[in-house]
Amino acid sequence: MSKPFKEIGVGVIGFGTVGTGTVKLLLENAELLRKRVGVPVKLLQVADMDTERNRGIKLPNGMLIDNAMRIVRDPNIQIVVELAGGTGAAKDFILESIRGGKSVVTANKALLAEHGTEIMRAAINAGVDIGFEASVGGGIPIIRTLREGLSANRIEGIYGIINGTCNYILSRMTKEGKPFAEVLAEAQNNGLAEADPSFDVDGIDASHKLAILIWLSTGGRVRLKDIYVEGIRDISPDDIAFAKVFGYTVKLLAIAKENGSGIEARVHPTMIPSQYLLSTVDGSNNAIYVKGDFVGSSMSYGQGAGMLPTASAVVSDVVEISRNLLRGSTGRIPPSGFSLMNQNMVTKIKPFEEVQCEYYLRILVMDKPGVLSRIAGVLGKHAISITSVLQKGKEKNAVPIFIITHQAKESDMRAAIAEVDKLSEVLDRTRMIRIENNL
Amino acid sequence: MSKPFKEIGVGVIGFGTVGTGTVKLLLENAELLRKRVGVPVKLLQVADMDTERNRGIKLPNGMLIDNAMRIVRDPNIQIVVELAGGTGAAKDFILESIRGGKSVVTANKALLAEHGTEIMRAAINAGVDIGFEASVGGGIPIIRTLREGLSANRIEGIYGIINGTCNYILSRMTKEGKPFAEVLAEAQNNGLAEADPSFDVDGIDASHKLAILIWLSTGGRVRLKDIYVEGIRDISPDDIAFAKVFGYTVKLLAIAKENGSGIEARVHPTMIPSQYLLSTVDGSNNAIYVKGDFVGSSMSYGQGAGMLPTASAVVSDVVEISRNLLRGSTGRIPPSGFSLMNQNMVTKIKPFEEVQCEYYLRILVMDKPGVLSRIAGVLGKHAISITSVLQKGKEKNAVPIFIITHQAKESDMRAAIAEVDKLSEVLDRTRMIRIENNL
Repeated sequence: MSKPFKEIGVGVIGFGTVGTGTVKLLLENAELLRKRVGVPVKLLQVADMDTERNRGIKLPNGMLIDNAMRIVRDPNIQIVVELAGGTGAAKDFILESIRGGKSVVTANKALLAEHGTEIMRAAINAGVDIGFEASVGGGIPIIRTLREGLSANRIEGIYGIINGTCNYILSRMTKEGKPFAEVLAEAQNNGLAEADPSFDVDGIDASHKLAILIWLSTGGRVRLKDIYVEGIRDISPDDIAFAKVFGYTVKLLAIAKENGSGIEARVHPTMIPSQYLLSTVDGSNNAIYVKGDFVGSSMSYGQGAGMLPTASAVVSDVVEISRNLLRGSTGRIPPSGFSLMNQNMVTKIKPFEEVQCEYYLRILVMDKPGVLSRIAGVLGKHAISITSVLQKGKEKNAVPIFIITHQAKESDMRAAIAEVDKLSEVLDRTRMIRIENNL
Repeated sequence: MSKPFKEIGVGVIGFGTVGTGTVKLLLENAELLRKRVGVPVKLLQVADMDTERNRGIKLPNGMLIDNAMRIVRDPNIQIVVELAGGTGAAKDFILESIRGGKSVVTANKALLAEHGTEIMRAAINAGVDIGFEASVGGGIPIIRTLREGLSANRIEGIYGIINGTCNYILSRMTKEGKPFAEVLAEAQNNGLAEADPSFDVDGIDASHKLAILIWLSTGGRVRLKDIYVEGIRDISPDDIAFAKVFGYTVKLLAIAKENGSGIEARVHPTMIPSQYLLSTVDGSNNAIYVKGDFVGSSMSYGQGAGMLPTASAVVSDVVEISRNLLRGSTGRIPPSGFSLMNQNMVTKIKPFEEVQCEYYLRILVMDKPGVLSRIAGVLGKHAISITSVLQKGKEKNAVPIFIITHQAKESDMRAAIAEVDKLSEVLDRTRMIRIENNL
């Protein structure tokens, strides 16, 4: 049954970077959107506390207001785009819009991570849509890909480069051999990293996004605390150079894997074979490699952030919801892509200590006979066998030893490293990077 | 308004390779499909003329029949999956299903290329869905990406590796330095190329797929005769080796570009910079690189053919249609992704002679003084200037000259080559490969 919408009214809350891109898109591509939807998709109102700043866009008189609640309550607006950010007022705007029967589009990962269940439940109960394509992978339509394009597959693995800042820093460290701190400082100067970079470089942002991807793959929510998270601060140019010698590239990967013994969920620096497509994803780009039981290997690549790519994702949700409104079919696909009988499910994550993979180790030792044999002995005691060893040219009396191991269990590796670090010949904390060979 | 479907009935016509994959998926992932759709998606009947051959799948008694029309007319079947192929009976099955109010999923590119307009119109008039995700890019959900994921974008360019056979052959020629004929023969022996390979290696298959991609980007149909098509038979290991020296990789690309002066549509071997992600797509894999005005660069990668990946695409359509059936919203998105007011539009393609690009030339000449100057003179006369020249070590008296040009017009290049080939010092037909530098 079609409702007789002559146009779809859109209100945008938050006129910052993504808000500006979204407004620009809705205005510039209005004719294209009309053709794709069938009726005009009309931007009616934009709200921001700052109504003065010049965003380089000329809005019609009266379109920009400072009271977001006027959008939430405007009967001519069917779709509220929440780009204010934060978890306070933004949550109220969204819940109040939903209660009023409006569909919502948001890019607010933090809000989804903290209050996702409550918001999704409200949307389901109200029979409205909630679009969040922009929350993962910027312009890459990965939400749709998991929920629709690959809907026939049991998802066996996800390997995502989903934090542009980390990928930018690692790419530059790889190309230029510079240390982390130097590249980070430059990225901060260029506006490519935040003044407080922790959310990005410590892997937190990637873990929030991974939680969303797993939810769309399994239908069950993931508790953030179940995801192991390790950032890139510890990676040195030496690690990257050694990885290269052995045919590997270092990336911050968000990994989810199902392999019979449970689902793994982890974010950490990872060495992957350099000939893999994922290794060649450079700069602040994002890519999500998905393995499905029928589709096999697939990958989606694009810009992971930025004003315009994110606006592309936001407005693709506006288009989808508009199409639903015209057919009276909002709520047609539940937010997770799984039917509602699954909505309270929690996805059980395998304890990280039980995860198995290959490892790279960098151990700084005194250049003395017998050191390597002592280290190998400790590893062997913990059921860890060595694939290859490389010893770097002498730096005074301290020599780094680089080791690649066969598959081992995380708990064994941790115990082994603790013991290695106690050896009198070991001069510094051992560094370890996990390896994924079979994407 | 929901219709009270307790389950969705599916019938599969054609129990060949893709049919077998589809049946396998519907049976093995039945529980997953139920969770994603909300009600069981039930395979009720499979039809094939050959009901005896062992496909390695055990079907319940009575499921396999030899009369496809029984599926078309079965009131318990809502979705007919047509995988019989060909443009004869398959067309009848589809049109008759649509007339009976059933939605249809097909992977039949040839049928869509020849009778697409008629079939789409029938589906629109009947208010049913027609899914054809499997027609381009195998398991890659590129139809959905253009119609939904990137729906907010004006598509500025599409660069597709969408014929797995060609990419397999070119990849092996690149890695092993073997000539086309030898790799083709091996591919035929391995079942990776057809006994009559023309449809693939002459670019015809890629042009059919490109027509579909342009239709989804512009909303207008493309006449196949408007697409310039050139296959890979003429590519030699020498061309590939020279490309490499200058930092290029040779791929068969399906290209659509809009650049102010009209839309270009062409399929031909193309030299692209080796550092581009698209260059690293190897073997029979497919990848479609899309440039949108807001999303910027994006790429979808995966297996372009095969029993299981294609089944993934077929069943993703079954899921989407099931979701529509449950909400009474079939026909929610018109086949092209553009509203029906555009359905009779034809996309005007720029005449190929007016297309501009850079070129690579291989000219076999007698090793005499003054030859290069004469060739450069002919090129210059036709407004073509040279970027770089390389002359290969002498082969008796015949020497190949490799040239890369600046941007030139196709008609100028053709005229220049015709004139070059008339020079007395030129010993063989000049070979030319187009270059794309700014993807």
